[in-house]
Amino acid sequence: MDLHEAQKIIIITEKLLAQRVCKVIDACGATGYTLIEAGGKGSRDIRSRDRASVVDGFDNVKIEVIVNDKAQAKHIMDEVTERYFSHYSGICYVESVAVLRPMKFGLTQSN
Amino acid sequence: MDLHEAQKIIIITEKLLAQRVCKVIDACGATGYTLIEAGGKGSRDIRSRDRASVVDGFDNVKIEVIVNDKAQAKHIMDEVTERYFSHYSGICYVESVAVLRPMKFGLTQSN
Amino acid sequence: MDLHEAQKIIIITEKLLAQRVCKVIDACGATGYTLIEAGGKGSRDIRSRDRASVVDGFDNVKIEVIVNDKAQAKHIMDEVTERYFSHYSGICYVESVAVLRPMKFGLTQSN
Repeated sequence: MDLHEAQKIIIITEKLLAQRVCKVIDACGATGYTLIEAGGKGSRDIRSRDRASVVDGFDNVKIEVIVNDKAQAKHIMDEVTERYFSHYSGICYVESVAVLRPMKFGLTQSN
Repeated sequence: MDLHEAQKIIIITEKLLAQRVCKVIDACGATGYTLIEAGGKGSRDIRSRDRASVVDGFDNVKIEVIVNDKAQAKHIMDEVTERYFSHYSGICYVESVAVLRPMKFGLTQSN
Repeated sequence: MDLHEAQKIIIITEKLLAQRVCKVIDACGATGYTLIEAGGKGSRDIRSRDRASVVDGFDNVKIEVIVNDKAQAKHIMDEVTERYFSHYSGICYVESVAVLRPMKFGLTQSN
């Protein structure tokens, strides 16, 4: 099987936003995502109250989505950022990856 | 200390497969791996039943393995995909990374 | 919004070290980090006792930090490695990422 270039979006935000963010990801046409519990400290310091809670309390969620290219990645990142991240704590970034079986990710074969 | 180029494989699959996948990774010569609990939605929609369970139930596992190069990465990805992913839900992809102390990862120094 | 190149450091170590490692990250000038519970097997085999516990016991932590560039990444990785990883189990590596809103990460706009 061959490897196909793709992009992975990572969104880290408050757990209470997870369902709403996943709905936006679905609406943008992604076929799947992965959710992981997370803790941490952000620029607002909302993501944790003190360092003890950073380690003990995992009140954030890390959402990962694999998409075709940077344009589709930016579309999802812009949607999520504009809708939620003026009022809620959250960050997002994108990484280059190479996938097996692109159809499993809903990716176009040309990639 | 210098940074050395390497590849990181990411496998996301059902938790019940974790031990079997790790055995394949071991057999392929990797010296370590990291396991993280995950939830999510995939192309088969087996990875979660509905969006509520996506957030609450973390029935998947994300397995990360650092290897020398894309050839070794593809070997492990092909082995795992061929053995398990026609019958079980799972995806895998690979990312370029740079590591300190390559011997800790069982990597060859020439990398 | 535009994407800005940055580097993501990943540190995987024993959970009991998490607070000390986060203090080093803070002291190196990073404005945030993300913590995720992890299990696994490493070159020392300290990171887990047997494969059963690998899956069940998540006694490690994965710490992610986004910084401006490889120089800042290497500074943090060297500090953490020199202070802790001769006595404790741990690995670290770095990946290239692209971020929205670099100021949220305390990154310089020029990146």
